[in-house]
Amino acid sequence: MSFDNRLKIGILGGGQLGKMLIQAAQDFDFHISVLDPDPDAPCRHLAHSFTVGQLTDYQTVIDFAQDIDVLTIEIEKVNIDALEILELVGKKVFPQPAVLRKIQDKRIQKQFFIDNEIPTAAFILTENKADVIANFDFLPAVNKLAKDGYDGRGVQILRNAEDLEKAFEAPSLLEELVDFEKEIAVIVARNENGEVKTFPTVEMLFHPEANLVEFLFSPAQIDAKIDKKAQEIAIEVANKFEIVGLLAVEMFITKDGRVLVNEVAPRPHNSGHQTMRANDVSQFEQHLRAIMNLPLGDTKSNCFAAMVNILGEDGHTGKAIYQNMDVILKESGVHPFLYGKAITKPFRKMGHVTILEENFENLIKKANFVKETLKVVSR
Amino acid sequence: MSFDNRLKIGILGGGQLGKMLIQAAQDFDFHISVLDPDPDAPCRHLAHSFTVGQLTDYQTVIDFAQDIDVLTIEIEKVNIDALEILELVGKKVFPQPAVLRKIQDKRIQKQFFIDNEIPTAAFILTENKADVIANFDFLPAVNKLAKDGYDGRGVQILRNAEDLEKAFEAPSLLEELVDFEKEIAVIVARNENGEVKTFPTVEMLFHPEANLVEFLFSPAQIDAKIDKKAQEIAIEVANKFEIVGLLAVEMFITKDGRVLVNEVAPRPHNSGHQTMRANDVSQFEQHLRAIMNLPLGDTKSNCFAAMVNILGEDGHTGKAIYQNMDVILKESGVHPFLYGKAITKPFRKMGHVTILEENFENLIKKANFVKETLKVVSR
Repeated sequence: MSFDNRLKIGILGGGQLGKMLIQAAQDFDFHISVLDPDPDAPCRHLAHSFTVGQLTDYQTVIDFAQDIDVLTIEIEKVNIDALEILELVGKKVFPQPAVLRKIQDKRIQKQFFIDNEIPTAAFILTENKADVIANFDFLPAVNKLAKDGYDGRGVQILRNAEDLEKAFEAPSLLEELVDFEKEIAVIVARNENGEVKTFPTVEMLFHPEANLVEFLFSPAQIDAKIDKKAQEIAIEVANKFEIVGLLAVEMFITKDGRVLVNEVAPRPHNSGHQTMRANDVSQFEQHLRAIMNLPLGDTKSNCFAAMVNILGEDGHTGKAIYQNMDVILKESGVHPFLYGKAITKPFRKMGHVTILEENFENLIKKANFVKETLKVVSR
Repeated sequence: MSFDNRLKIGILGGGQLGKMLIQAAQDFDFHISVLDPDPDAPCRHLAHSFTVGQLTDYQTVIDFAQDIDVLTIEIEKVNIDALEILELVGKKVFPQPAVLRKIQDKRIQKQFFIDNEIPTAAFILTENKADVIANFDFLPAVNKLAKDGYDGRGVQILRNAEDLEKAFEAPSLLEELVDFEKEIAVIVARNENGEVKTFPTVEMLFHPEANLVEFLFSPAQIDAKIDKKAQEIAIEVANKFEIVGLLAVEMFITKDGRVLVNEVAPRPHNSGHQTMRANDVSQFEQHLRAIMNLPLGDTKSNCFAAMVNILGEDGHTGKAIYQNMDVILKESGVHPFLYGKAITKPFRKMGHVTILEENFENLIKKANFVKETLKVVSR
């Protein structure tokens, strides 16, 4: 375990998670290369080198990794065959390709929970729409595409016969619709030495239409026993995967007080953005420490924090304008982060705002104020 | 006062202050262009565009500013004639060229304090070494070059006849050697609307040999009345200059309880680096808010903080290696920032470490531990 900032880190994906990872890397002067298919990706001006190419293309990933020492991801949809070969020839690839394979496919991920006795909602596998229709008695349920869901896409609720029309015509899950009290998340970091640290549990409120996190509060206002349970489960999942890097574990607290794992993401996650301001180390720095096999940082939160996703206004597509930014900046403890996406679209994640407060009620008021005030529209 | 992240910001200077300014700008997705003579400057990979050129060359500065909306600096030694012309043709230039002119020359700066009844140490002007020798009875004194001093260069103490040999052979100041209790600093921000905010007062301990800040503690552990006085003086200086941007005001607290202004810097400053972790807004974000005429942020500090400059080890010149980084990273609240300078030299500022603590005594212990442990040597 020693520090060498001459090592070159490669990131597959150049979106907002990559951007915030690079901001953390700048403090350590790590050399960062990014691969992304979009020449206008948020990371385009931030990395030491930025390569345009498909993350799912075998040869593109192999070529990109040639002069990289440590390879990581900020999106799961990457060519895992390439990562396996790179690992075989001695590159550090974190999270490990084997872990990515288990998580990338939500059906395999779900089976992994069952095999390892991780509490999770009941489910059945469906191959196509006909399969879903045949399992009509399982409704109401959540229909999840096995692969390639992202930012609210690939997940939908089927409540009744009418909804069956939109069932996915592809390998999917049909998952029990959990009658939850709260949705929470715990981000776990694990380094090569096996050191494990968790961030405090947070609670999330989802946008009803876009299926995206709308508000997040940290730490979660939940019973201490349930919190302890959630933290233990998150650590258990990370250890079972033997992941090196971050694992975001999203969970339900059911109305009868059980904690069920919903799904996991092997990377920095929307449920940890507030750590950039509210915690001793951020999830992004922690991810770097984990993959560089450095000691993990202290995750304690210094105050109450909220995170509000800044979503593109419905009905607006085009070059983005941020309305009322000056109004929210008048408030203390209000910290916007814009992702640098030139084009706004309905419900596109354009940025987030972190709000810090000593008092939890004021936090909620301020978070609502920010949500109501800051708008992303097109010119 | 409205927010427009399509505006292009230009920074004269691409050193560590520019780097940290860019890190703050990334949160707002501001477009940043940098001009620096060194093709390997810390900002080289971080800006949207990086131009190699002399900051003191009139035409280079004019050309650089062509597609810039707001021009700022991270070093005072720039071509002010060019900035004046740019201001005349309608560019926003902050700090204003007139302010830079008063501060760039320490003799004019000092006279400005006198003219505006700002308390400062007694001084005389000297044109050359002979002049200093003729004023032998003024010793012990601080001999300061009028122009181009930076990072400890251009400032020296003359205690006795022997020291006269090294007196500056150029326009200089000979300043009363203040018998101070503490050296403190207050960073003030002022925007175009005239809104003014100060950061909490900090205290600085200088490296005896390199004349550089070695340790900084925030907030300063000083008498409340003296603190109030220091804050008032700092605001007074900023208002007298009518500066837009940041003004770092370095002051002495004398043994008889007076507060004297030592010197000022019209930009982010080494005495404010801890604000990146310890305060609600950092000095870098505050500078951006000031020059973009946005509401100034809350400057409150959330805990005790120390800042330790990471200086290149004496006797080492060459490619930098950071020894024992992994050791200091085991401590909670310890946050290194490396500036990305490839080459280390004796006493060169290679980075800094911010230390956060609830308890002031632990803070001092941890700061000393970091100073003793982390070393920059050459390969």
